[in-house]
Amino acid sequence: MTDRRVFLQIPGPTNIPPRILQAMNRPLVNHRGPEFEALMKECLSGLKRVYKTESDVVIFPGSGSGGLEAAIVNTLSPGDKVLSVRHGVFSERFGDIAAAHGADVEKIEAEWGRAVDPAQVLDRLEKDAHGSIKAVLLSHNETSTCVINNVEAIGRGMAELKHPALLMVDAVSSLAMADLQTDAWNIDIVISASQKGLMLPPGLAILSFSEKAWEAYKTAKMARWFWDIKRMADAQKQGRVPYTIPTSLLFGLREALTMIEAEGLENVFTRHTRLARGVRAAAREMGLEVLPPEEEASPTVTGVKIPAGIEWTSLNAALLEKGVVMGGGLAKLQGRIFRLGHMGWIFETELTGILATLESSLAGLGYKVEAGSAVKGFKRSAVI
Amino acid sequence: MTDRRVFLQIPGPTNIPPRILQAMNRPLVNHRGPEFEALMKECLSGLKRVYKTESDVVIFPGSGSGGLEAAIVNTLSPGDKVLSVRHGVFSERFGDIAAAHGADVEKIEAEWGRAVDPAQVLDRLEKDAHGSIKAVLLSHNETSTCVINNVEAIGRGMAELKHPALLMVDAVSSLAMADLQTDAWNIDIVISASQKGLMLPPGLAILSFSEKAWEAYKTAKMARWFWDIKRMADAQKQGRVPYTIPTSLLFGLREALTMIEAEGLENVFTRHTRLARGVRAAAREMGLEVLPPEEEASPTVTGVKIPAGIEWTSLNAALLEKGVVMGGGLAKLQGRIFRLGHMGWIFETELTGILATLESSLAGLGYKVEAGSAVKGFKRSAVI
Amino acid sequence: MTDRRVFLQIPGPTNIPPRILQAMNRPLVNHRGPEFEALMKECLSGLKRVYKTESDVVIFPGSGSGGLEAAIVNTLSPGDKVLSVRHGVFSERFGDIAAAHGADVEKIEAEWGRAVDPAQVLDRLEKDAHGSIKAVLLSHNETSTCVINNVEAIGRGMAELKHPALLMVDAVSSLAMADLQTDAWNIDIVISASQKGLMLPPGLAILSFSEKAWEAYKTAKMARWFWDIKRMADAQKQGRVPYTIPTSLLFGLREALTMIEAEGLENVFTRHTRLARGVRAAAREMGLEVLPPEEEASPTVTGVKIPAGIEWTSLNAALLEKGVVMGGGLAKLQGRIFRLGHMGWIFETELTGILATLESSLAGLGYKVEAGSAVKGFKRSAVI
Amino acid sequence: MTDRRVFLQIPGPTNIPPRILQAMNRPLVNHRGPEFEALMKECLSGLKRVYKTESDVVIFPGSGSGGLEAAIVNTLSPGDKVLSVRHGVFSERFGDIAAAHGADVEKIEAEWGRAVDPAQVLDRLEKDAHGSIKAVLLSHNETSTCVINNVEAIGRGMAELKHPALLMVDAVSSLAMADLQTDAWNIDIVISASQKGLMLPPGLAILSFSEKAWEAYKTAKMARWFWDIKRMADAQKQGRVPYTIPTSLLFGLREALTMIEAEGLENVFTRHTRLARGVRAAAREMGLEVLPPEEEASPTVTGVKIPAGIEWTSLNAALLEKGVVMGGGLAKLQGRIFRLGHMGWIFETELTGILATLESSLAGLGYKVEAGSAVKGFKRSAVI
Repeated sequence: MTDRRVFLQIPGPTNIPPRILQAMNRPLVNHRGPEFEALMKECLSGLKRVYKTESDVVIFPGSGSGGLEAAIVNTLSPGDKVLSVRHGVFSERFGDIAAAHGADVEKIEAEWGRAVDPAQVLDRLEKDAHGSIKAVLLSHNETSTCVINNVEAIGRGMAELKHPALLMVDAVSSLAMADLQTDAWNIDIVISASQKGLMLPPGLAILSFSEKAWEAYKTAKMARWFWDIKRMADAQKQGRVPYTIPTSLLFGLREALTMIEAEGLENVFTRHTRLARGVRAAAREMGLEVLPPEEEASPTVTGVKIPAGIEWTSLNAALLEKGVVMGGGLAKLQGRIFRLGHMGWIFETELTGILATLESSLAGLGYKVEAGSAVKGFKRSAVI
Repeated sequence: MTDRRVFLQIPGPTNIPPRILQAMNRPLVNHRGPEFEALMKECLSGLKRVYKTESDVVIFPGSGSGGLEAAIVNTLSPGDKVLSVRHGVFSERFGDIAAAHGADVEKIEAEWGRAVDPAQVLDRLEKDAHGSIKAVLLSHNETSTCVINNVEAIGRGMAELKHPALLMVDAVSSLAMADLQTDAWNIDIVISASQKGLMLPPGLAILSFSEKAWEAYKTAKMARWFWDIKRMADAQKQGRVPYTIPTSLLFGLREALTMIEAEGLENVFTRHTRLARGVRAAAREMGLEVLPPEEEASPTVTGVKIPAGIEWTSLNAALLEKGVVMGGGLAKLQGRIFRLGHMGWIFETELTGILATLESSLAGLGYKVEAGSAVKGFKRSAVI
Repeated sequence: MTDRRVFLQIPGPTNIPPRILQAMNRPLVNHRGPEFEALMKECLSGLKRVYKTESDVVIFPGSGSGGLEAAIVNTLSPGDKVLSVRHGVFSERFGDIAAAHGADVEKIEAEWGRAVDPAQVLDRLEKDAHGSIKAVLLSHNETSTCVINNVEAIGRGMAELKHPALLMVDAVSSLAMADLQTDAWNIDIVISASQKGLMLPPGLAILSFSEKAWEAYKTAKMARWFWDIKRMADAQKQGRVPYTIPTSLLFGLREALTMIEAEGLENVFTRHTRLARGVRAAAREMGLEVLPPEEEASPTVTGVKIPAGIEWTSLNAALLEKGVVMGGGLAKLQGRIFRLGHMGWIFETELTGILATLESSLAGLGYKVEAGSAVKGFKRSAVI
Repeated sequence: MTDRRVFLQIPGPTNIPPRILQAMNRPLVNHRGPEFEALMKECLSGLKRVYKTESDVVIFPGSGSGGLEAAIVNTLSPGDKVLSVRHGVFSERFGDIAAAHGADVEKIEAEWGRAVDPAQVLDRLEKDAHGSIKAVLLSHNETSTCVINNVEAIGRGMAELKHPALLMVDAVSSLAMADLQTDAWNIDIVISASQKGLMLPPGLAILSFSEKAWEAYKTAKMARWFWDIKRMADAQKQGRVPYTIPTSLLFGLREALTMIEAEGLENVFTRHTRLARGVRAAAREMGLEVLPPEEEASPTVTGVKIPAGIEWTSLNAALLEKGVVMGGGLAKLQGRIFRLGHMGWIFETELTGILATLESSLAGLGYKVEAGSAVKGFKRSAVI
């Protein structure tokens, strides 16, 4: 079998830059020594700039789902009512985790493939005059349906309403790729992970935690030990940890933050926006249909409907043969869409190649498409 | 400052072999693809051989402490009585985690620096005629006091008593270094982690889970989502995961298991036993006192009392200047002992160098010791 | 500045596969020990399969130019007449090296951008009834003009003529990419290097050496010590070296040979042939002119005339901004052509992306080209 | 077989620091681009500080022996008389290379295991009133006999004599480890390589080249192309190369130079001096005999006579089993001495471990030695 260049275009984990691989390729250090202390502090201050927050940012060993669990168990008590905004696998998971820990979950559902209407959320909160809703659980970018939510409208709206609920945002597949203003948008907890916009292998869950979240922590009664955020935050502010953390990933994280700052965070956002627009235009030029409407489409992953007569397994096999790894549809979208991730370390040159391979793979399966269409569509719209 | 060779002799994380660094230095793969599936399955079957079990072995992103939490929340309900055997920081932590999740923790305490007397545990269980004790929480190797427990006696004794309690063993600092026979010794859950005997960076918690543990799982009511072991085990048996796991570490884990099998698991145990004996003999030859009695001393980390007139901070500084990183005492042993880890990838040549540096560092601080004593003591006893 | 993915499309060094980087990322071994011996022997036997020879293959520290020098000084004496076939920078260099060591160089010149006509060489040899010509110096693939020579016709023709001259072929930019049958085509010395088809960093010169070459060695009087091939060959057959050799590259070479065998050597050739045809078709579809005629065009690097009104420096800058590194024209072709290397570890997906970037870079400089043309041309012809 | 930690204590190649492995673990760059240019210039200026010269320093792909050849063919003509100072394998090789290129080699021989008496060299030159001797070929550190020469006395003496001969010094196994003042000591050419004091894999030959050497270059008639130093020096001053050079090693070289400057070049010298003194004291404390007298002993490699009744092959096997790789005796010293390299990245902690392993390996073969002697001897003398 040919060991060709692989393009990991699933919606995470993503392609790791050689610089980051290089930074992690080293012996460990004592996690109770001065080198670790400096490393931890650099990571935290860099993350705050990416999170656009002056609140605490805390790193756990784990995964994005672990971060969601940490957000919940550190701020809520069994029986607390939470509003779970749901329109895909991962936004549902956020609510399910809350339910598993005893929260009373009220669902706000949107169609899979659409963003949630901020008014729907705000209206519900407005009706909750006594503040019985303790938290709103929201995905910034719903990875399974390739949709981005208007978090700003919801966050600013909640502030206007003066509703006391905590706003918790799952930004696992958007952080460091789409603008997210933790403080300005009044978000209490933003959850992310290492293996998407931060261009690292999986292994870290990362959370911001506002003053209001710290207040909630004081009375939260859900059981916790591993995810206890106070123990972790107190230690990390001193450059320490209460239990071992994947040190190798911290070396990589420091490098990733350096790369992001060198490119410029806003430039990173613009790059993702433009590449995503190009991908959608390429899809349309090939006669394919993008799942979400243009204005709700994710800048980090694009969901495309699989044309009639083509099986995802055949398309996937054809793509893999050319070194391109995309994601299939999940749950009720299985077999109906494929997902092309353009997250993190991705640029125009390789993305046009990936699109050209998508085009010829479709053609190889009998789909009618003119050679060159994908690039033609991309170039017209990406304007990078 | 000189960038000299560093010997990471804390009781974990440990020195990573170049082969393992090399194995991890690569791009990621799709965690929903065939390469990942094969990797996961190879890791699990290799781990079963190291665990000496035919039960399931499950890998979580996390740390050793996360593994302890997973053991508890998957098998117990709030209010369940557990017996927590305590004689150091980490054995206390195991009980504390259970308490944090609502267990009714009964303590069996042993002196710090001593192993627990198996009879003490078995007597208590014998008195529990109605089987109200649901679990026994035990450390195989108490890292903070450098003591190893007779897990075999307790495990076999519980089987003889036919007591229904689950036996949960924290083997974070002993697995793949000291003999531990999960099945033969009737242990229901053995918890370990990546960064000690498995010679990897931190980031994985690993658990074995017996049939009896699976029975308990069915009725266990402690809240859980991330640590839910059924979701993880079911997925892993298929070579999948329900959420992302540190793939890089799995590549390293496969290599570590290959190295362990090449050396021979029993040879790895013997090596640790002999090196530990040599370290204790070296300490005594230098006129130092080892914390635990000889027959209770850990084969993976040695606790040595700091001689009168010497401060740990000064000794530590002198050692660091020579590239040797040891651990200080924790909690009530702080300033009273230092801990020399000889875990995982460690052999006679570097260990004698480390001991010679310990000797000259002590001498430099005014301690009376004849040059060459450490090696003299080591060589007489290590017989490797 | 953005640290984007870089496509090193110069005609060598080439992109290094992660597997090879991984194989080299390790401590050294004793070059007088058993591990080195096995490594050296595996490299030599793998190289013989790539060279299609049963003669000796010898590895020197150095570069391709060093290999050319080694070929000459080991077989010739000052004053010996050699026939230097010249139609570009590197074929001229081969003759220049011979002249620098005292050979009497007779030139056969072809137009830059054209292959040499085999008849021209064979006619000259036929006229040399007394065999005064001792060697023919020929490039398989002239990197500077992107032309491939019909080595087979010349080699077989010389055998038919029974002319005693040694045939020395510079295959630095063709080995392991274009078919070259050392033994079947009667080539006495084939020179290559590590950093092109073998996908390694630079640092090795590699030569095959026929029985006839060994005969010539016996009387060759050119001064040599470092390049003495007998000392090196004798040692290497024993798995040794007379002076240190870049061991790291040997670890990489073994991995490269494994990769080539896994893909299949003939498949590697076909891949290069098809990708090259696709690149030329893409160029033509964009309205560009390829330097050599189709049937003489190199399968490893394509020379394209720079269209009127465009400066190479501007085009180069535009390409670099997108992470694409191509080569400019050398010597009298400077500013007149650019060279796109498609050597070694290169596949359709990234190559179409590179072509799309070439297209938009040209467009950005005012060149009229329809978006998608490059991919359209490529897809029509590459048929991979 | 156990994959234990390996200590590569041959007199080169040496142990590579993780930082340097890390620096080389990366994709290549265009050797005709700006990143390469900066890299090359940083390497050259760093090397000049290590060489203590303001003359040119030039880097070739190759090995130390290649550097010796380059020194000769760039400055001499066939028939030129050179004085070859000989007392071991490598100093003999220097002269042999000159002879192979047609020089008229006059030998000054010293006993193997002794340094050359500077007076012997200066006397000969004094007698050469007409300046018929064109060059003096001298090893700074004769690796095969573990002896260091007084280059300063010879260099300053030649200046005093105003003898026109070029002084060429083989510093392959001393550069960046023992003080060598190229300019102050009037040395015209200092030859070194990458794999010893510079802590890199093999693959580079490095030369300084004085004004006087450049004068000689103008009339030197030895045949050369690859080693032509003018072509290489002119290109390198522009941050370019006339043919490809091992770029990976340049990335490592830049890191090595940074490490050396961080430690301080004079501190690096002192470290080598002290460690070497400690090794010799350890040998003597074990009752072993060091080959050269104390004041002529090399600071980078120690030659120890093998005690009666012990075979080198047995001792070597015992050492290898413990991960320690030493060198045997070469040529007429084969079986009579072993050589312990303490070059480059080596510090007290591992060196005492290595000595302890030497001690127990000897004891295991029946040699009478008290455990701890080696460390005892080392500690008394090394005073680090």
